[in-house]
Amino acid sequence: MADIIVDDVRLAKFSTEVFVKLGVPRKDAQITSDVLVASDLRGIPSHGVARLMRYVDGIRAGTILPRVKTKIIKETSTTAALDAKHGLGQPAGYFGMNLAIKKAKRSGVGFVTVRNSNHYGIAGYYSMMALKNNLIGISMTNSAPLAVPTFGRDSMIGTNPISVVAPCAKGRPYVLDMATTVVPRGKLEVLNRLNKPLPLGWAVDERGIPTTDTAHVLDNMSKAAGGGVLPLGGAGEDLSGHKGYGLSLMVDMFSGALSGADYGPWVKAKKKDGTKGFINVGHFFGAIKIDNFIPLRRFKGTMDEMLGGLKKSTKAQGEKRIFIHGEKEFEKYDAYKKKGVPLQDKVVAALKNLSKELSISYNIEK
Amino acid sequence: MADIIVDDVRLAKFSTEVFVKLGVPRKDAQITSDVLVASDLRGIPSHGVARLMRYVDGIRAGTILPRVKTKIIKETSTTAALDAKHGLGQPAGYFGMNLAIKKAKRSGVGFVTVRNSNHYGIAGYYSMMALKNNLIGISMTNSAPLAVPTFGRDSMIGTNPISVVAPCAKGRPYVLDMATTVVPRGKLEVLNRLNKPLPLGWAVDERGIPTTDTAHVLDNMSKAAGGGVLPLGGAGEDLSGHKGYGLSLMVDMFSGALSGADYGPWVKAKKKDGTKGFINVGHFFGAIKIDNFIPLRRFKGTMDEMLGGLKKSTKAQGEKRIFIHGEKEFEKYDAYKKKGVPLQDKVVAALKNLSKELSISYNIEK
Repeated sequence: MADIIVDDVRLAKFSTEVFVKLGVPRKDAQITSDVLVASDLRGIPSHGVARLMRYVDGIRAGTILPRVKTKIIKETSTTAALDAKHGLGQPAGYFGMNLAIKKAKRSGVGFVTVRNSNHYGIAGYYSMMALKNNLIGISMTNSAPLAVPTFGRDSMIGTNPISVVAPCAKGRPYVLDMATTVVPRGKLEVLNRLNKPLPLGWAVDERGIPTTDTAHVLDNMSKAAGGGVLPLGGAGEDLSGHKGYGLSLMVDMFSGALSGADYGPWVKAKKKDGTKGFINVGHFFGAIKIDNFIPLRRFKGTMDEMLGGLKKSTKAQGEKRIFIHGEKEFEKYDAYKKKGVPLQDKVVAALKNLSKELSISYNIEK
Repeated sequence: MADIIVDDVRLAKFSTEVFVKLGVPRKDAQITSDVLVASDLRGIPSHGVARLMRYVDGIRAGTILPRVKTKIIKETSTTAALDAKHGLGQPAGYFGMNLAIKKAKRSGVGFVTVRNSNHYGIAGYYSMMALKNNLIGISMTNSAPLAVPTFGRDSMIGTNPISVVAPCAKGRPYVLDMATTVVPRGKLEVLNRLNKPLPLGWAVDERGIPTTDTAHVLDNMSKAAGGGVLPLGGAGEDLSGHKGYGLSLMVDMFSGALSGADYGPWVKAKKKDGTKGFINVGHFFGAIKIDNFIPLRRFKGTMDEMLGGLKKSTKAQGEKRIFIHGEKEFEKYDAYKKKGVPLQDKVVAALKNLSKELSISYNIEK
């Protein structure tokens, strides 16, 4: 399981060519690849080009339509409801967030829903688009069911991430980008590969009982045999697992119910009526103009002071550093931009296969 | 520690007379009392009339100004920045949320910040005001420092609650109203009275190490001697305590930095320069018009289906019920409206004292 170091720019170009060969318009292919590589650069390989094969499979299977254009269904100066027409989630998200930003710049706030979409990558990619415009950015999406509600035993909700970002003056911006479950599925898979048990509080078995049996939980998940990941806060109410469950419902309310996408357990190909269909994912984007409330300069200065004060506060015994959200990812980004992005060898093998299959030159290694 | 059963309407009237005697205009006194009694009715006594004495003390000490009027500093069709002028948080919150609702009805969305305010009671009171208007409601506030950031040892952030609500068609609405810490201070105080240890993951001691010593944590808190409550997710990153920490920062970004109120460790009377001053709390209110995105009827039907589906899903072994957020509180409300509100005898004793001191007739018991 050695990592292979690749160049991010050539990796994005390679990924773009893959999508183009599959019929995706070049601009959409570039956006999608940029979202994937941004995830690798930020040290979130689970949402990076490792997922390229899933998109490729989706396009080939006809569950992701490569050539459609996101359509505006309803629009006002502050809001819009979009239909992604079962295309890739990334161009739909890019279009949606840009629309929210445009509205916020003109009308103070902009909120945009997207229905009939697919997996859009990291939530933080879109919210961070607000930063160059000095806006507060919001991005949420629902996702295939994986999380078990408090006191339940079946996975009924997605990992439903929420991202909120805000600019600072001198320091790095605040970039919250979090699944509302205690962990995403990817973290279970990492432990499984290492043959390690789960920390108690991450997942429950098919009876809804907390378990440390990594392989068993993953096996249940892939068979939809019950159990799954716990909401942030863990099992039951003692450590407030009901709060994480409530946050995941909030994300589904905004991304699913408000957009007209599927929701909860229905964000998957198998529909309520038993038929097979598109995976109807929904997103929610928001942008807020800071100047409408307080001078931008003062806001950014306050953010610097607040985040700086936290970082400088006394560390717990044995700890060396207090982090701000997004900080670790910015540091990874800087390092990987310079030294190259590490990809797992099995991911590289999949890319090499694609290179042969689609006759795209493989030239991504540093 | 027997509970005394009181009538909610007479309790609100009594509380109103207390505020009026202290110089609060009758309408503001009524709003404040309604927020307090609503909390008792919903089964959250920590934020109910048990807090009346703190407000009384604040008004008497001059840290809460009874007669001021919340002022609009900056306003557009979608946004407003308010200054509560160091008055009670409840009338300021009521004014702010109503303004957000008015804007959302006219312009699709309304967002309002409030600075120079005080403790405003339960966050959910304000967000729920959106429900009769068929809007999505949002309410957040920062609060005095109590929570310790991940890998830290000092309380640097408040319990910073967030409330988001959405209407349903037949079922009860979705009412999320949660502190972003694993628990509020009140829960520690309950265990302390019972001489019980804390569950591991609720709090850390003055070294930043998780502890179960209830009395020690509370003692540290009152002396500001270090330690405090943990963010949702608990200590460190294993169970994603950094996510709760990130959410509390988000609330402070919206309620503190964006409003121009104090933030983080500075939400208290002792200021950065060492002087004493007002406790400059900030709030954030939002309202979103559902019809701008999707027909209201369809949204409410989807919410019924989503929440109903969760409630009907299979329970964990040994569990009988899956709850929706707000459901327990609605049931308490119905029961207490009928049978009366239970108040702790020491709370009733304080009310009796106030009755004598201020010559207000005590006539609240059922």
